[in-house]
Amino acid sequence: MRHLFKIDPAKPLSEEAIKRLLQSETDGFIIGGTDEITLENVTETYECFMETDLPLYLEVSTPDMILPLADQFLIPMVLNTRDTTWSHGLHVEILRKYAPHVPFRRLSPVGYVILNKDAKAAIKTGAETNLEAETVAAYAELAEHFFHLPIFYVEYSGIFGDVTILKAAKAVLSETKLWYGGGIRSLIDAKKMAEVADVIIVGNLIYENLEEALATTRVSARASGRGDNMIK
Amino acid sequence: MRHLFKIDPAKPLSEEAIKRLLQSETDGFIIGGTDEITLENVTETYECFMETDLPLYLEVSTPDMILPLADQFLIPMVLNTRDTTWSHGLHVEILRKYAPHVPFRRLSPVGYVILNKDAKAAIKTGAETNLEAETVAAYAELAEHFFHLPIFYVEYSGIFGDVTILKAAKAVLSETKLWYGGGIRSLIDAKKMAEVADVIIVGNLIYENLEEALATTRVSARASGRGDNMIK
Repeated sequence: MRHLFKIDPAKPLSEEAIKRLLQSETDGFIIGGTDEITLENVTETYECFMETDLPLYLEVSTPDMILPLADQFLIPMVLNTRDTTWSHGLHVEILRKYAPHVPFRRLSPVGYVILNKDAKAAIKTGAETNLEAETVAAYAELAEHFFHLPIFYVEYSGIFGDVTILKAAKAVLSETKLWYGGGIRSLIDAKKMAEVADVIIVGNLIYENLEEALATTRVSARASGRGDNMIK
Repeated sequence: MRHLFKIDPAKPLSEEAIKRLLQSETDGFIIGGTDEITLENVTETYECFMETDLPLYLEVSTPDMILPLADQFLIPMVLNTRDTTWSHGLHVEILRKYAPHVPFRRLSPVGYVILNKDAKAAIKTGAETNLEAETVAAYAELAEHFFHLPIFYVEYSGIFGDVTILKAAKAVLSETKLWYGGGIRSLIDAKKMAEVADVIIVGNLIYENLEEALATTRVSARASGRGDNMIK
């Protein structure tokens, strides 16, 4: 897996766009967003994409998003915040209420480092975004060696990230996979980040320029014939 | 492993006491404390106990305690705090400075829940100690399923804990081991907690009543012939 499309339940997509995304050479889909997420629009979006044989992840940003029908969940744990609410506090609250119903085998906890200070998620979680490459690498090591997280996600949310920072994180990871998201607006951008990250996520571009978004799938494992053995 | 003695580097022990602890049927030793910890007294304590063939852990509460000579380290990560400094922030700082020298294979990250509001560690870390059994169980599930921590440590630090709470944590754990520490002042206390926890830790009693502390080793895996297969 090297390329994922991120579908925002709050943003409309035409039937034609959905069809083309499903027929593209991406390696899978994430359903997730920040604003105006409702059980209704999540369910609707999930149903539009559930016909795929590719991995289809639900990124759980609110408890409302835990659809019993979904197959795989990504659980964000924001690491670069001072407030444990966002790293693990909300998770404990949810576990306290719903633990017997939580499908642990279908959850992937994801260690996030949010690096765009203007991103809504950064503001909401009080993320400390002004980090040097060495500090981001230290977070990556924490994710791998202390928390054994399967995924370390460098999130620039809307802006194109610093490749140096991404490289520093990649250099210290072995088991934990490096995912990158933010500001990929062309195939060239996609290639630049896919050279470093294990997986790149293309989101906003779907809504800004569908043709270019589809073009980014040329870095996917399926398009490049590199198989789907990077991550299960 | 079912019984560990916790040795405080800041508290003096006679040669005779050290000898008897080493010859006891405990399953191992932790070196760790809260106050007046110095590189000097840690090193000295380590040297007194390093002749043992049993596991000898160094609980790292300050970076000063990372002795290159030590074999196994316990890394406390306080879960029931609002401040990420104590759950993982300090850890990132240390990784940022020393990562190339950190012996990851010899570290065991330990998820702590501190439940005695008057304990120094609770005050220092701003621990939310007034937790119901269900909430402690949720922390245990977080430790096992989200952070994959090898050890979940219920710490009552000085007072004897609530067995109901310990049972609630034990009921949800399978891979992660449950360690208990706090207020064990007799063999009876030790038995009560060892019936629920995988491992009990006897600390203060060593300094208050060495004979009774030695008596608690009757719950150890070695004394009870249950072998050392509970945890590696």
